[in-house]
Order: sequence, then C-alpha cells, then structure tokens
Amino acid sequence: MSEIPEAGPAPGTAPVPAGPDAAELEDRWRRTLADLDNLRKRYARELAREREAERERVTTAFLPVLDNLDLALQHAGADPQSIIDGVRALREQALAIVAGLGFRREDQAGIPFDPTRHEVVGVVDPAGSQVAPGAVAQVLRPGYGSPEHQLRPAAVTVAQRPES
Amino acid sequence: MSEIPEAGPAPGTAPVPAGPDAAELEDRWRRTLADLDNLRKRYARELAREREAERERVTTAFLPVLDNLDLALQHAGADPQSIIDGVRALREQALAIVAGLGFRREDQAGIPFDPTRHEVVGVVDPAGSQVAPGAVAQVLRPGYGSPEHQLRPAAVTVAQRPES
Repeated sequence: MSEIPEAGPAPGTAPVPAGPDAAELEDRWRRTLADLDNLRKRYARELAREREAERERVTTAFLPVLDNLDLALQHAGADPQSIIDGVRALREQALAIVAGLGFRREDQAGIPFDPTRHEVVGVVDPAGSQVAPGAVAQVLRPGYGSPEHQLRPAAVTVAQRPES
Repeated sequence: MSEIPEAGPAPGTAPVPAGPDAAELEDRWRRTLADLDNLRKRYARELAREREAERERVTTAFLPVLDNLDLALQHAGADPQSIIDGVRALREQALAIVAGLGFRREDQAGIPFDPTRHEVVGVVDPAGSQVAPGAVAQVLRPGYGSPEHQLRPAAVTVAQRPES
C-alpha cells in the first residue's frame, strides 16, 4: 500500500511535444494526478479508521450498563425489592445512553398513526381502546430513532378507522 | 455545497501560452484539479455519513438489552428468583453483543500483570492472595477491548513482587 510519489512518471501515456511551457504544464497535471491518487488512498484508510473509532465510542458508552448488570448479580442474594430497583435504574441508564447518542424512544399511545415511525401489528376496535380512530391504541414494542432515521419503528396496534 | 463543475476555471492562476498542446495540457490539469476538489467534498460527506451509519448499527445492536429491561420490569411482581434469572440472561446477552462487536472482556485473575490491559488500583501481599508475585490478584472492574485497542483497561489489584 505504498503511495505514488508526487510527480512520479505515469506509464503508458502518449508523448507530448517538448518545450518549457508544455513540459511545465504536463508536470503540473501529473502532480495533480498523483495528489488525486494519494487522496483516494488516504480517504479509504480514514473511512475505515473513523468507522472503527465510532464503534469503539458507542460501545464504550454502553459499558456502564454491563458494569451495573454485574453489580446487580453480585447482590442477587439481597432483598428482591432492591434488585428490582436496580433493574429500574439500569433501564433509565440505558435509555439515557441511547438518548445521548441522539436516538429518541417512541412509546406513546394515543397519537395519530405515522407510517414513518409506527409498524402496525394489529388493528383494534376503537370502542374498546379509548383512542380516536386512526390513532395508536397500544405500543407493543417501543421504537427508537432520530428525526432523520429510525433505528426501528414502534410496533403498535391501531384503532380501526370507520369504513368509508 | 454545490460541486465545482469539471474543467471549471480556477481563478487567480497565471496565464499560460496559447497553442493546441499547451491548451490541451492545461485543460487536463484543470480537470484533474476539479476532480481533486470534488473528491475532497465527496469524502467529507461520506465520512459523516459512515460515522452516523456506524453509530446507528452499534446502537441497534444494543436495543434487545433495552427490550429485555422493559420486560424484566413488566414482570417485576413475579417470583424474585425469576427476576434474578432474567438479569443473568440480560448480562449474557449484553456480553454477547459486545463480543459480537469485536471486543473481548478482560476479567481473569491469576494471569501476569500486563500494563496494556490492566490498570493497577491496589497492591496486595502475595501470601494472602494465592497468586504468584507480579500476577493479577483480583479484578475489581473488568476491562473491554480488541487486540488493537482497549476500550478501557481492567481495574486490578496486583500481588506485590519481592523487594529486589
């Protein structure tokens, strides 16, 4: 993966007429071609490195959850209520990490169905669900995402619209 | 953020002598310069996009942990032992996710101290710790990392070496 030296000869190109101006111009062109090639190689390496750095950053953000899972189990012999409290704190912590990474939890019922954020897994009778027809009746699995991109949609049941 | 059209004029450059060969060479040079500029802009966008995609990928990998924290709390009224079993399963799941992302857990005692993977937080008497002098006596907080890069070192106590 050695880089092409700047202004190195490029084989297989047609000869150009001699003369200082043409030679100077050809030299500039070849240098720029070599720059272009070096830039391509450099960026390919950088892209891989940036992906790796981001994977490390995000995984590191989740490590406190693992630490607290370890701790919860070390105290598993303790009062069951304290374990439940520990799990509740763990859940808040995990949600805060996800929020800190820029992703919002989508778990609200009663709001209008939105196909960009909701995946319908069932339709219910509005009479029994206490929400308006066309609204989300129940969130079975929360969704997560940023305004630009959903990590996954919320799995919801929707109150049936009246037959038109 | 519009791209410079290929072979667009670059302002502020010295005039070059006329003539078909020189003109052709200058044209090539300018096109290559424009390519170089476009490449720079394209990669800047790609870098941001790749980082974002990696953040989404890694966060999505952790979502099942959040789901199971939700489920554990929904059944918090159940048998305490089943909650502890649930937390244990959750911990295995979280560790499997971290391993799947390419990071190993470092939690072994008794192995030789390694400054690239261990952070010493205490020194103990080897007589009481049942490990060889210079070995890791106890892991107080596990470390995580890949062979290339530690996310964080393991916090350990080390059995004291004999005075030399």
